[in-house]
Amino acid sequence: MENQATIRRLKTVEGHLRGVIRMVEEDAYCIDVIRQIQAIEAALNKVSVQILEGHLDACVTAAIQGSDKKERERVLKEITEVFEMSAKV
Amino acid sequence: MENQATIRRLKTVEGHLRGVIRMVEEDAYCIDVIRQIQAIEAALNKVSVQILEGHLDACVTAAIQGSDKKERERVLKEITEVFEMSAKV
Amino acid sequence: MENQATIRRLKTVEGHLRGVIRMVEEDAYCIDVIRQIQAIEAALNKVSVQILEGHLDACVTAAIQGSDKKERERVLKEITEVFEMSAKV
Amino acid sequence: MENQATIRRLKTVEGHLRGVIRMVEEDAYCIDVIRQIQAIEAALNKVSVQILEGHLDACVTAAIQGSDKKERERVLKEITEVFEMSAKV
Repeated sequence: MENQATIRRLKTVEGHLRGVIRMVEEDAYCIDVIRQIQAIEAALNKVSVQILEGHLDACVTAAIQGSDKKERERVLKEITEVFEMSAKV
Repeated sequence: MENQATIRRLKTVEGHLRGVIRMVEEDAYCIDVIRQIQAIEAALNKVSVQILEGHLDACVTAAIQGSDKKERERVLKEITEVFEMSAKV
Repeated sequence: MENQATIRRLKTVEGHLRGVIRMVEEDAYCIDVIRQIQAIEAALNKVSVQILEGHLDACVTAAIQGSDKKERERVLKEITEVFEMSAKV
Repeated sequence: MENQATIRRLKTVEGHLRGVIRMVEEDAYCIDVIRQIQAIEAALNKVSVQILEGHLDACVTAAIQGSDKKERERVLKEITEVFEMSAKV
């Protein structure tokens, strides 16, 4: 269900990206192309946030409530890693 | 010519994005999806940098060497704007 | 204990920032100033990551293992919010 | 003149940063600390944008209107570099 929403959003981004490719093919103004690429990145950020939200509610909560210490540490480490990376892209 | 390289890179990103959509359809692990989205964003950043590079060499240089003060101000303002936005996406 | 490490790191950033103020006072080259500001931001990102890491291990784990559903939802929502914000700064 | 404004803004950021150090010393809630650090980063971004703006109007314009091709290429390369970096911090 939730996947359906994510897929829909990513397909919208794909359409947007195809529009940008067309802009470049038609020799659009550079700055306009950069702005559209930035808009795509902002949209992708939103998708990531929504995926993370679902992940925290489901997998992370299950892992932390579970009895497997290694698994608990693993899911928390992953959150830190994607947070660290998110500042860099 | 330069456009050809940009188009090629954007089409590679499009292929990458389609791969991510497939991952979500096949119910891939959330964190793996987020990481792939971050990789796409990093690739888009690189495309923006390359477009800006070409823009500075061509349009901006021409405008600044030209006699139209308004046009000079306009191109410089745009650089500032995309720089400002780049910190936010 | 962990706080001590965070304080030390933030004080290093403060020293770095004071160095940048001095650079501007001494009329340093703009691009060098911008680069130093970017280095400060990268250092601040690292501090945030380390604070988040400690927070996940302690507060978030306690909340999720606890019986208060509202509290669980609150801590997870906060993670999503700082993740969302981290992409914008 | 313009430097005075930049110095004032950076000193405000320094005050903000000292406040954050105090928060950590007083054992403030982790997420509140992260949010304040993100606010500092947003403020630093604004300072960078303003410095770049002044740099484009003065140094870059002078270099591009000048006759030194190497110098022209150098200033443009620097713009591309700080733009590239800005996406990463």
